[in-house]
Amino acid sequence: MVKPGASRRSAIDPFIVMDVMTAAADREAAGARVVHMEVGEPGAAPPFAVREAARAALGGGRIGYTEALGARPLRQRIARYYAETHGVEVPIGRIAVTTGSSGAFNLSFLAAFDAGDRVALTAPGYPAYRNILKALGLVPVEIETHAADRHALTPEMLAAAHRAAPLAGVIIASPANPTGTMMTPEALAALVAAADDLGIRFVSDEIYHGLVYDGVAETALKLSPQAIVINSFSKYYCMTGWRVGWMVLPDDLVRPVERLAQNFYISAPDLSQRAAIAAFDATEELEAIKASYAANRLVLIDRLPSIGFEDIFPVDGAFYVYASVRRFSNDSAEFARRMLAEAGVAATPGLDFDQKRGHAFIRFSFAGTTADMVEAMDRIETWLR
Amino acid sequence: MVKPGASRRSAIDPFIVMDVMTAAADREAAGARVVHMEVGEPGAAPPFAVREAARAALGGGRIGYTEALGARPLRQRIARYYAETHGVEVPIGRIAVTTGSSGAFNLSFLAAFDAGDRVALTAPGYPAYRNILKALGLVPVEIETHAADRHALTPEMLAAAHRAAPLAGVIIASPANPTGTMMTPEALAALVAAADDLGIRFVSDEIYHGLVYDGVAETALKLSPQAIVINSFSKYYCMTGWRVGWMVLPDDLVRPVERLAQNFYISAPDLSQRAAIAAFDATEELEAIKASYAANRLVLIDRLPSIGFEDIFPVDGAFYVYASVRRFSNDSAEFARRMLAEAGVAATPGLDFDQKRGHAFIRFSFAGTTADMVEAMDRIETWLR
Repeated sequence: MVKPGASRRSAIDPFIVMDVMTAAADREAAGARVVHMEVGEPGAAPPFAVREAARAALGGGRIGYTEALGARPLRQRIARYYAETHGVEVPIGRIAVTTGSSGAFNLSFLAAFDAGDRVALTAPGYPAYRNILKALGLVPVEIETHAADRHALTPEMLAAAHRAAPLAGVIIASPANPTGTMMTPEALAALVAAADDLGIRFVSDEIYHGLVYDGVAETALKLSPQAIVINSFSKYYCMTGWRVGWMVLPDDLVRPVERLAQNFYISAPDLSQRAAIAAFDATEELEAIKASYAANRLVLIDRLPSIGFEDIFPVDGAFYVYASVRRFSNDSAEFARRMLAEAGVAATPGLDFDQKRGHAFIRFSFAGTTADMVEAMDRIETWLR
Repeated sequence: MVKPGASRRSAIDPFIVMDVMTAAADREAAGARVVHMEVGEPGAAPPFAVREAARAALGGGRIGYTEALGARPLRQRIARYYAETHGVEVPIGRIAVTTGSSGAFNLSFLAAFDAGDRVALTAPGYPAYRNILKALGLVPVEIETHAADRHALTPEMLAAAHRAAPLAGVIIASPANPTGTMMTPEALAALVAAADDLGIRFVSDEIYHGLVYDGVAETALKLSPQAIVINSFSKYYCMTGWRVGWMVLPDDLVRPVERLAQNFYISAPDLSQRAAIAAFDATEELEAIKASYAANRLVLIDRLPSIGFEDIFPVDGAFYVYASVRRFSNDSAEFARRMLAEAGVAATPGLDFDQKRGHAFIRFSFAGTTADMVEAMDRIETWLR
């Protein structure tokens, strides 16, 4: 009997934040109190209108498959969002509802890139980009960004990487995870234009749109008909566990994505799609939640430096502070483990986001309550003394 | 400006049933009445207890990410299902909750196989196996099954394909889609043993377990510690649109699947996971639904041959009849198009399931109401006259 093994391509990195989440759950199961700053997810319940829409759907017969590109009423509502928020008309034929932005990454990478293709991304950046690309046989090309440039990727940096070896694509998040920095509309436009000029497919991860404290978030939809735009109901709309997001696709990728979605997903969750329509009209509730993030942001920006964390970035948007722990440790994974075990605060080591320099950084998510943020700062301060 | 295109690997076949579904939705949007026999999905609402569990979750705060392998209470309940239904103990560490069986196929193929690996499957069979394998750079090796063998794959057929060129895996569904045939426990055991002897990873798609009209459905979990077992809440439990299923994994694939799931899915939908726990206790309601399928099965097995459909298989389980249309047409895609347009009955052409021989076949799903089945038979009979 020959024993088959695991594939080589499954030897990607874990999404470390999920392992921290499991470690935190283990501690809680053992009766400990943990303040959660590890996962990038709102602490709030989904908006009232969303829950009401879900309740209504539960009373109305089958919760079934939808068309692979999504239920038409939701796609229409997403189109209206672009008209109202960005003043841009988009036909619903270009909108694909996905199983979270995760589904959008998988589908767009499969639809746009072939095995061996090189795709640029920033370090630090969202680790699942790199890990999904690798598992799909693509080559992630990490471009290091720097605090001095507010962690922006510039046209020059993109062109240099393309000269070194041709790039098929580039993926950018603005506001960014883990740094919270945002590109100006002008900087984004220049980068998209550079990608178009070089024949590099631009993938714009706009999942933190709506969560902006300073400046204006521009959509790549207005900048290029070639760009793939990815968004989600998880962050601003407080619907992480519903697993529903969307893409706006270039015309030539609509049918490829549809074929892939039919086979890989059948459809995104029906109940989530019906509930998500209501999220667009929950603005008052969602703005109040955002105001609490703004308060949390001020707590962290004030307390973290005084505790001894360094190199904190502007945090224009999203709900993260990425901070250097080098005054305390050169091993942020060990630092995070001890902070969870000894101070009861869960946060994510920087290696998740930047494999070269992340050993000196840690990411705090401030999407919980302000009381939790204050408690966490107190706990960390006491622990580090 | 260079224009990037779609990837070569996105040039997989559509999941034709989804295209039929879209065509049917178009007709309904235009005011026509359509009897749906195209999609393999229960017409019934989810069980009452499932809806109640979802309602309770909607009142209780955040609907959030769960651990990547699934919420522990659901994994515990799935373990209990195996103990109660099959008399087999399985540690929850081997159970992974997935985003439908679709998520399980994607994750298990990525975890177990590398690009270029050959994976055997039957023709006719579920088309997404073939299409997902291709998009992931794997080589589907289709083995034609025959009515005379009740469409079973035998150890001899598997060994012959492996001799022609080594196989890394084989995927089998029993009860099968589209034929409804089921392997006996002895036949399944012999096939699993043959796969183990040859070092071929056995993937057992058990999504139609629970929907058996004749015979006993055995689980591969009892037959080999190497097998990957896939199941779902979509079929017997009437939860298609909730997108929740599960896998039981061999020990060596647990951590690879966990890493992949963290990056590709984050987690399966939380609300669906909480609701699914209740599905296991909705037996009375679900058995009544199954009884209606049994009635539908008798309607189709009686009416279809008298209308002129041929080569109908035993239909031991699932909710499909796969029938030859050769008395009417040698182009089942055109036949299905006309049947939808002229008789208002949607069904799926055989090319979805068997690219060589499917042109002469069509699949009817009988998971709707008995009244719908009778109406469909009447409509088709009138139309074909």
